[in-house]
Amino acid sequence: MNTSMIRYILGHVLRIESAFMLLPCIVGLCYREEATLPFLYVAIGLFIISSLMVIKKPKDTVFYLKEGCVATALSWIFMSLFGCLPFVFCGAIPSFTDALFETISGFTTTGASILAEVESLPRCALFWRSFTHWIGGMGVLVFLLAIIPLTGGSHINLMKAESPGPSVGKFVPKLRQTARILYIIYLFLTVLEVILLMFGGMGVLDSIMTAFGTAGTGGFGVRNDSFMSFSPYIQWVVSIFMIIFGVNFNFYYLILFLHFKKAFSIEEVKYYFLIILSAIAIIFFSIRNMFTSDFEAITHTTFQVASIISSTGYSSADFNLWPDVCKVVLTILMFVGACAGSTGGGIKVTRLVVLVKTVAKELRSYIHPKRISKVNLDGKPVEHEVVRAINVFYITFTLIFFSSVLLISIENYDFATNFTSVLATMNNIGPGLSLVGPTSNFAFFNNFSKYVLMFDMLAGRLELFPLLILFHPAIYKEMFEKAIHSKRK
Amino acid sequence: MNTSMIRYILGHVLRIESAFMLLPCIVGLCYREEATLPFLYVAIGLFIISSLMVIKKPKDTVFYLKEGCVATALSWIFMSLFGCLPFVFCGAIPSFTDALFETISGFTTTGASILAEVESLPRCALFWRSFTHWIGGMGVLVFLLAIIPLTGGSHINLMKAESPGPSVGKFVPKLRQTARILYIIYLFLTVLEVILLMFGGMGVLDSIMTAFGTAGTGGFGVRNDSFMSFSPYIQWVVSIFMIIFGVNFNFYYLILFLHFKKAFSIEEVKYYFLIILSAIAIIFFSIRNMFTSDFEAITHTTFQVASIISSTGYSSADFNLWPDVCKVVLTILMFVGACAGSTGGGIKVTRLVVLVKTVAKELRSYIHPKRISKVNLDGKPVEHEVVRAINVFYITFTLIFFSSVLLISIENYDFATNFTSVLATMNNIGPGLSLVGPTSNFAFFNNFSKYVLMFDMLAGRLELFPLLILFHPAIYKEMFEKAIHSKRK
Repeated sequence: MNTSMIRYILGHVLRIESAFMLLPCIVGLCYREEATLPFLYVAIGLFIISSLMVIKKPKDTVFYLKEGCVATALSWIFMSLFGCLPFVFCGAIPSFTDALFETISGFTTTGASILAEVESLPRCALFWRSFTHWIGGMGVLVFLLAIIPLTGGSHINLMKAESPGPSVGKFVPKLRQTARILYIIYLFLTVLEVILLMFGGMGVLDSIMTAFGTAGTGGFGVRNDSFMSFSPYIQWVVSIFMIIFGVNFNFYYLILFLHFKKAFSIEEVKYYFLIILSAIAIIFFSIRNMFTSDFEAITHTTFQVASIISSTGYSSADFNLWPDVCKVVLTILMFVGACAGSTGGGIKVTRLVVLVKTVAKELRSYIHPKRISKVNLDGKPVEHEVVRAINVFYITFTLIFFSSVLLISIENYDFATNFTSVLATMNNIGPGLSLVGPTSNFAFFNNFSKYVLMFDMLAGRLELFPLLILFHPAIYKEMFEKAIHSKRK
Repeated sequence: MNTSMIRYILGHVLRIESAFMLLPCIVGLCYREEATLPFLYVAIGLFIISSLMVIKKPKDTVFYLKEGCVATALSWIFMSLFGCLPFVFCGAIPSFTDALFETISGFTTTGASILAEVESLPRCALFWRSFTHWIGGMGVLVFLLAIIPLTGGSHINLMKAESPGPSVGKFVPKLRQTARILYIIYLFLTVLEVILLMFGGMGVLDSIMTAFGTAGTGGFGVRNDSFMSFSPYIQWVVSIFMIIFGVNFNFYYLILFLHFKKAFSIEEVKYYFLIILSAIAIIFFSIRNMFTSDFEAITHTTFQVASIISSTGYSSADFNLWPDVCKVVLTILMFVGACAGSTGGGIKVTRLVVLVKTVAKELRSYIHPKRISKVNLDGKPVEHEVVRAINVFYITFTLIFFSSVLLISIENYDFATNFTSVLATMNNIGPGLSLVGPTSNFAFFNNFSKYVLMFDMLAGRLELFPLLILFHPAIYKEMFEKAIHSKRK
């Protein structure tokens, strides 16, 4: 285990975080808020600590996938540990556990909140809360790769560990350039949304924060009732951008470089829209009589479907009160999630497409046992290794899922609460059903349950294995042996 | 597709059913019940039809897995269609859909009932209801193999299609002998339970019917309150036998032939008991203060755990009123199910052991990417093909599961009802939670939902693919082409 390389990367990540933390300071200064000082202090402290961590460059830069996973998992954990401190110090969220929950929820783009009331928060705290979504959406390590040259295999292994989806697409030979292009597309779409929101009469700061939440498919809102009291125009802009940020970024990359034919032939994107349209159809016909006009019904249907499949978690209506068939459709969408290579969570459309195709292939093999059939995606056969990895992901996902439900159920809330609180956190959605529905929050859970849910949020965002690896004894055995070895020298 | 061979096997299966139907006639005669006549008429009618089907022996006996699957699926469907007729004709269950639901629930050893009241049923009808469990438990095609010599690969392919578990164990070179030994063990254990129940003061007929329900891990009881009003002695006997019938029959086979060391080294059996003990521990400590004595608490805990993991579905207490952690434990046990090669349902312990080991292996591969690690079971590496098949089974299972929940949810009952009604039928358990809890029944569903649940019961019992294959267009295309071809000749 190359611990000095992990320390070095961790230092860089925290240094980026300290720089990012200056933004809420600026917001706080504009509004002349007292809460600005804690943000400044933490930013300075973090800068000093992180600078000490990167002073000594590691000699050995060899970096494998396990180091990538450990570095990524630790980055996310420490980023959250430091990121929550301003909330505690400025008094916005006095409890450390709650502040950590809120910050992990932010970075993992979950959007599950323990706050019943957000409108009274200092603007700088509210800004930082939304900004964590934007940082977490594309990934801080991807950002690191975009700005810092690293060698020894660290690029690809960090990217593999942090990016959502079964395989990292390499559009351009240089991974650093890929990371930059991804962030440019991300920034461009965010700015576009801010402009469109401001056209609808939303304030600058609210527009920026809303766009952060949409871009990262996070879900922290700027009003207590999320999007229920905004105009249909705002609701439609947000709906469309939620869908946009759930699309595989390969699609935008290909569009950017004018490969239209290739872009529109990505199967995952087609299925993504097919699922969205089917869900809208089912829900629209189930709830149309609950609204005064069909336009209102389709607005709310689209908003909720876009919000759940993209794993954002904004809400324009309390879908907890909708007929059960709508709730089941939304529950299924929570599992499905967005496209791989987007900022969204969930199992991801491409994985499900491969899984369904695997089942169809199995059925064919019963009928024609001698014919060799393969799973194809985008016209090419999917490598056996990828199919295997997807299977294992799916199995691991359900095992962690049910273990978490079991742990949460010790608190003795109802079945739908236990089930959907894990579902909503592990898939980085935000609200679930019943007690964790869109008009409620997660504050009522005890600390133990909150830590379980925090684990689920991180596991979901990092796609399970990078986090699980931290719990494998072999990692510590290796570190321990290395420490002894270096002392002997 | 060898349709004449399928017709021939189907004929034999129905002939066995007509013979089996004489048993309730005898019970009816003993009690001088009017309801005996419908049973006799259906038995005679079925005998005539099935005899016509087997008159012409097929010339071509070549038989592949697809024929095995189709023959098995059709056997189970037609057995249920004919098996439900006496219930309709004798007036015990006037609605055809309800009678079919009850019969499929019987044959698939689910035990989900649409009857609120069973004590007033004619004894012959009650006997037939319980007897379907016994027939379905070990499988009617296994019975067929035990008594009728078949050639052309039909043995192994029928056995593969009907037997629960990822792979059919071949203890003895002759499959026919295997089938016989299985039925002898099955009969012996059933008789043993009958004797022990009679010791506890239960009547002969009730003891036999209870033993049928236990042996098949079915769950149709003889009293309206299932086992709540029976003595602790009876409850313990039933508990122990439910656990016994959930064990892989390989274990008994090895014991029978004195291979003790090999028997006790079967990993699946060890994990089965480990899961049972863990579940008992969690539930016992959660409910002990709900009962007057620890003995009472442990009696009910053991009974419910044994009932759910073995997929029987008897109940000695209303676990719907227990704390939520107990309900989640029981829900997880519903997924787990019994051992492969037992009469129980569910995903099966061996599959889950392999799935968990696959995850552990994946984690190891992150840490030591170059080391080749294999999944081992019982000290031997599991073949890649078996691992793959288990993965596909698991994926197919969850896909059917969620599709069914979606279809059931159209009726707009609560989340726990939708979720656990599918869970309890697909895993062939019987009762679920909420509206389908142990003191309720399935009568309130509309016909559409009932047919979805019937499909789930058959899919669960036949382990998905043999039933799914009936919906594949290639099967009908082939039959159609063959029909045209033979006409031309």
